[in-house]
Parts: sequence; structure tokens; C-alpha cells
Amino acid sequence: MAKDMTLLWGSGSPPCWRVQLMLEEKQLQGYNQKLLSFEKMEHKSQELPSFKCGKHILNESFAACLFLENQYKSQGNKLIPDSPDAQALVYQRMFEAVTLVQKMVDLVAYNFRVPEGERHDSAVQRNTEALTAELKLWEGYLKKTVKDCCLAGKEFTLADVLVFPYIAYMFHYGLSSERYPALAKYYNSLKDRPSIKASWPPYWQKFIEQDTLKAI
Amino acid sequence: MAKDMTLLWGSGSPPCWRVQLMLEEKQLQGYNQKLLSFEKMEHKSQELPSFKCGKHILNESFAACLFLENQYKSQGNKLIPDSPDAQALVYQRMFEAVTLVQKMVDLVAYNFRVPEGERHDSAVQRNTEALTAELKLWEGYLKKTVKDCCLAGKEFTLADVLVFPYIAYMFHYGLSSERYPALAKYYNSLKDRPSIKASWPPYWQKFIEQDTLKAI
Repeated sequence: MAKDMTLLWGSGSPPCWRVQLMLEEKQLQGYNQKLLSFEKMEHKSQELPSFKCGKHILNESFAACLFLENQYKSQGNKLIPDSPDAQALVYQRMFEAVTLVQKMVDLVAYNFRVPEGERHDSAVQRNTEALTAELKLWEGYLKKTVKDCCLAGKEFTLADVLVFPYIAYMFHYGLSSERYPALAKYYNSLKDRPSIKASWPPYWQKFIEQDTLKAI
Repeated sequence: MAKDMTLLWGSGSPPCWRVQLMLEEKQLQGYNQKLLSFEKMEHKSQELPSFKCGKHILNESFAACLFLENQYKSQGNKLIPDSPDAQALVYQRMFEAVTLVQKMVDLVAYNFRVPEGERHDSAVQRNTEALTAELKLWEGYLKKTVKDCCLAGKEFTLADVLVFPYIAYMFHYGLSSERYPALAKYYNSLKDRPSIKASWPPYWQKFIEQDTLKAI
């Protein structure tokens, strides 16, 4: 069935990584894929991730992941738990991730999104404070659950599929392990998970880490 | 079981309406509720919607809706279809809604979010163009499916629960039926649906419609 699937992806793009990670978790290796070149701006000609499953096109990472979980419930790892307690927490964290991502993007993509004549140091300052406050919230969440490894407890769930690529992205871009020890522990305890290792952005292995987020 | 649920909500707040609509669709009337006053700024002291289901707190509207659908699969209307064709489209539209909402908020909440000294007419212009382009995309989607009533075809689904309150919000604030006839048809064909009527924002019945979005 994975032969019937195609993923267009960009290396180091967290939404793409979410789908790749999901495909690994569901043992759907062997899908067709095309790595787009950021340098050649190939990603601008398409919406990423663009995932095709048979005739279905799912180019939103949340949509692709929920569809795969639903279609392959009993294949690979089950990522939405049945127990209402765990399930409620998984859904809650999954959708809080939308805010986390937005606050990260507001900061790291500021110069890309805001034309030069409209930029203000005060806005960058506010975006920095907003991301810092958001990360402290997640640091608090992970302090409570990190002894269990994952965002919603002992099991790796869809919340981790959707959040981990962004946490990894932030550490790759210089987030401080000292200031965010629970996030760092989460990152380090999951980075050798087979699905995560198998889908680790190849682009990140070639370049040294950056310090974009060092001051957060 | 609905007696075990509590919703804090604000009248005319689309995320709150999503959860109210979902509760109607699942025949979970009779839940506890507290209408917060925007005038008294009560909504600022809480994250809305704040939905409590037994001991589970779900204060993201997507999370609350997916949790209710999963916990009450066979009660009320089924909102995630089993057929892979329909299901893929429902998930795709559900998460495209995140972008629609973001572009709407970037425009309508501009003065609220951006301090006076950082405001630029060029930014408002760009936000206006972005929302217009986004609405044309949805107009195109609805042109294809509106003869069937709903976003993903003949059945009312979770995509409609999540998107309809924002479409209604935009028409309430002056969106043009002439320029968006498929969106208007969608709006008009659903506004008398029992679940939607039962959860219609009471605040909107008191005030005349506004023209914030007239120029879009």
C-alpha cells in the first residue's frame, strides 16, 4: 500500500518531517518521495508537505497524520489512545502545538514575512517574549510527564509526531538546553527513537548548528 | 453524561460556537454553561473555549470536537465519515481552516494585535489581499460541492463544524454575498440547520450587522 503513496518534502521542514515520522510509525516505508531543493526554490512551487495517498491529496500535515492513523489503526504503533484520559490529553497537546508553531514562526520568519520598511525592533522583542512564554508553558508540561518520555505520558502519540519536529528544529537552531531542561530531556530521550532517526532531516547532518534561537 | 460537561463561552466567538455546535450535533444538550461577558472582559481571564468533559479539560476547539466525535461515535450525527474518499477531504478542509482563520484574524484583529506605532497601511493592504485570495480559494471549493450542501459533499461533517462559524462570522461582519456567491449559498443553506440555529450567538441577534469586511 505504501507504494501507492507519494510525499514531496523539503529537508528540515517540520511539517514534512511530521508526515515522514508518521509513515515510519505506521510501518509504511517504501513510499515514493521527492526531496525538493530549497536552494532552487522548488518548495515555493508546491504546498508542502504534499502527500498523496492513492488518489487522496493531503497537503496539511495534521490532515495527513490523522488520515494515516485512521486508515492504519492496527498497523505499526497506535498513536491515538483509546482511554479517554490519555486521548483528551493527546488532542489537547496536538492543538496547542498550533500556537507553539505560530509563535515560533512569528519570530524566526519575521524578516522573511515582514517587508523591510515595516519592521520594528519592538515587534521582534514582543515576538521573542511570546515565544519564551510559550516555551515555558511546554517546559512546565514536560516537567510533569518527561519521566514517562512523551508529551502525553508513557506512550509516544500523535502529539509527539506533531510537536517533536518543532522541538528538534528549535534545538537545531540554538535553543538553550540549560534554560529548557525538560524540553532538552524530551528531545534527547526521543532523538534515537527508530522512526525519528530514520526520518531525521539529511540537511541537518551536513551543517553545523545555528544560533538563531540562542537568546530565547 | 452531558450533565458532566461544562462550557465557558463568549457570544459570537467562533471557537466557542464550534464546540456548542458539536455538542448539538452529538445530542449532548443539557451541559452546564457559563456565558462570559466580553464587556466585563471576563473572557480575558480564561482561555476560551474552556470545555470540561468530566475531569478532562479541552480548551482548544479542534481538540474538544475531535474528542467528542471519538467518545460519542454512535451518538447523534457521525461527523467523520468512514469512506477514505470523504474522510481525506474532511481532514484536508478541517486543517485548511487553520489558515483561513489566521488570515481573517490577521485582518480583523490588526489594530488589537499591533500597537499603534507599528501599524502600516501597507500591512493592512497585504492582509486584505491575503484574506481575499484565501476566500476565493474557499469560494472555488464550495462552487464544486455546494449543490450537495456541505464542504465535503452531501454530509455535514466536522469540516463544517469547524468552518461554518467563521463563514457566518464573516457574513455577520459584512462579507459580500455578491462577490462570494458560493460562500453565501453555503451560509444560507446551513443557517437553519437545527444544531446551528440552536447555537446561534445570542449577541448577534441584538445588534445590526457590521461592515468590517465589506471591502473584501
